[in-house]
Amino acid sequence: MRTRAAVALEAGKPLEIMEVNLEGPKAGEVLVEIKATGICHTDDFTRSGADPEGIFPSILGHEGAGVVVEVGPGVTTVKPGDHVIPLYTPECRQCASCLSGKTNLCTAIRATQGQGLMPDGTTRFSMLDGTPIMHYMGCSTFSNYTVLPEIAVAKVREDAPFDKICYIGCGVTTGIGAVINTAKVEIGAKAVVFGLGGIGLNVIQGLRLAGADMIIGVDLNPDKKPMAERFGMTHFINPREVDNVVQEIVSMTKTPFDQIGGADYTFDCTGNVTVMRQALESAHRGWGQSIVIGVAPAGAEISTRPFQLVTGRVWKGSAFGGARGRTDVPKIVDWYMDGKIEIDPMITHTLKLEDINKGFDLMHSGESIRSVVIY
Amino acid sequence: MRTRAAVALEAGKPLEIMEVNLEGPKAGEVLVEIKATGICHTDDFTRSGADPEGIFPSILGHEGAGVVVEVGPGVTTVKPGDHVIPLYTPECRQCASCLSGKTNLCTAIRATQGQGLMPDGTTRFSMLDGTPIMHYMGCSTFSNYTVLPEIAVAKVREDAPFDKICYIGCGVTTGIGAVINTAKVEIGAKAVVFGLGGIGLNVIQGLRLAGADMIIGVDLNPDKKPMAERFGMTHFINPREVDNVVQEIVSMTKTPFDQIGGADYTFDCTGNVTVMRQALESAHRGWGQSIVIGVAPAGAEISTRPFQLVTGRVWKGSAFGGARGRTDVPKIVDWYMDGKIEIDPMITHTLKLEDINKGFDLMHSGESIRSVVIY
Repeated sequence: MRTRAAVALEAGKPLEIMEVNLEGPKAGEVLVEIKATGICHTDDFTRSGADPEGIFPSILGHEGAGVVVEVGPGVTTVKPGDHVIPLYTPECRQCASCLSGKTNLCTAIRATQGQGLMPDGTTRFSMLDGTPIMHYMGCSTFSNYTVLPEIAVAKVREDAPFDKICYIGCGVTTGIGAVINTAKVEIGAKAVVFGLGGIGLNVIQGLRLAGADMIIGVDLNPDKKPMAERFGMTHFINPREVDNVVQEIVSMTKTPFDQIGGADYTFDCTGNVTVMRQALESAHRGWGQSIVIGVAPAGAEISTRPFQLVTGRVWKGSAFGGARGRTDVPKIVDWYMDGKIEIDPMITHTLKLEDINKGFDLMHSGESIRSVVIY
Repeated sequence: MRTRAAVALEAGKPLEIMEVNLEGPKAGEVLVEIKATGICHTDDFTRSGADPEGIFPSILGHEGAGVVVEVGPGVTTVKPGDHVIPLYTPECRQCASCLSGKTNLCTAIRATQGQGLMPDGTTRFSMLDGTPIMHYMGCSTFSNYTVLPEIAVAKVREDAPFDKICYIGCGVTTGIGAVINTAKVEIGAKAVVFGLGGIGLNVIQGLRLAGADMIIGVDLNPDKKPMAERFGMTHFINPREVDNVVQEIVSMTKTPFDQIGGADYTFDCTGNVTVMRQALESAHRGWGQSIVIGVAPAGAEISTRPFQLVTGRVWKGSAFGGARGRTDVPKIVDWYMDGKIEIDPMITHTLKLEDINKGFDLMHSGESIRSVVIY
């Protein structure tokens, strides 16, 4: 079949909207009509050429929602008509990683996915002249139709709006999951969120959901404050307005009983390795955990004195919010539908596929929290 | 009163054996006759002048065992005649840290202890000419008699030999506790221990106690192998004999089912920041935890790509093995007396106080695992 897609022909160039060929689903695969897709910083990281593992030409996009159109042989868990969210972190429930019970990082199809291929080592997309086009993060939601492995789709309820729940395919789950699954924040905790973009806002609403007492947001841009407060931020720090962010956080978190100070949990949502260090060092001596969520530039390294760890701070990371996609994503959709979490105010722009490059412009200018393409 | 002690008069010099004045215990303090004390790398770190927080003149030593001689006003938990192990990490059971239930790093007397003083801000030791001598790590076990805060002694059974259980005051607890309290290693785990000195051997026996399946030791000195095997090491790597230690560990830990590889738990017992990075990076993707135990040189920093954390590795540290001294140390003494752990083969040398500087020489030459001074 043919489908319309925004194709990344080469690094650093705008995407090009075109008709491409799409082969039908093979064994264990499903054909999905994408109804809506978010535009994420990770797509831009690859599009721009900054991603050393970027492959071109490819169809980017990994934050979608849609409907199953056709299933390949052997597919048993979804059927045509099912509403699904594609999963860039699949959940096979059979590999050593899934069965460990300790991680969401399923490794069943990792090698081929990293090469832009389906699990059988081939691609379903091609140019009209036959040139192969690579998949991206196993999803390629910047195509109106895409093929996905069965283990890389989460079946969700049918009354949930595609143009909102597509955001659960990455940003929402990444932020909320980092709080719930990775940090396992408890009621009454004090937390700090570095970076108040889309991920930061979702961390904040995850903290609110988890019952945190103190939710400190840190951002260089004070315009981010009202929206962050809307999602649950209780205190704001502009690093330009204080001498030392770490000391400021330590001071703010002291109590008459606890004169040590420091946050129980800190989250980096910036990808800046200097900020990651501040996040670790503002965690409480003895037990504070710092969670790296942001994606750092290629080659960048984090560092600290080991004394920070020896005195009880823990440095962790979170990918896709530690969520097992097929198991946890449908629950997060329920939370949205039940009003436990909010998504609508974060979808600041909706676009047609033709205008997808505007979505990247809005991201760069800081005007958008999330732009969503509606097919 | 007067007592005999080995005094660190200035950085970089041998200790000097002399008579010193010792004031009796004030409120909340106890006078202890030290019967035996280990000589630890941390003592040497301070003695040598490498410790930026070292204070002189002081009486070093923090790994002792002895008998309570006299108690100050208000002391209720120990009495004269009780056998005790001094605790450089006290356990007040009343501060925010103790009551958090999340850390052993009691902060009740941290500030004064760091300054070489008792909790009231004064020192009990002085030269015969009246010059004050500072306490060290709140213990000063290189003195035949010493004064300690009540919250900094663990009462232990009276049938346990001082010249062995003194080692529980630091090395044994640090190593075994890192496994049990900090990493919480489970039965069947695969673990790596970097550095097969005294701490490394105690980590190894902690892993054996915890039921680890695979205990890989890493050391540049193959002479360490037999002793490590005696304590439970199952595999040995000499970094000089392999291309890449991390890759070697990943290969060794792969199974037909788990083709990712990596250790469930890794422990740095070297204090070398390059090794700390290797320890982190040889932990299993998705869930491997790396525990920093070694003390790094002043100013040294650890670093890695944040991707290592985002893909599920956890970087932690451990001080005094995460043990709450008054609660956990008596249990470890029981384990020794019950034969669950071994100490005797690690006490390679016993010395008189007059020969304490020989103990440092034996440490430097690598001849000793632990030298113990018997008073």
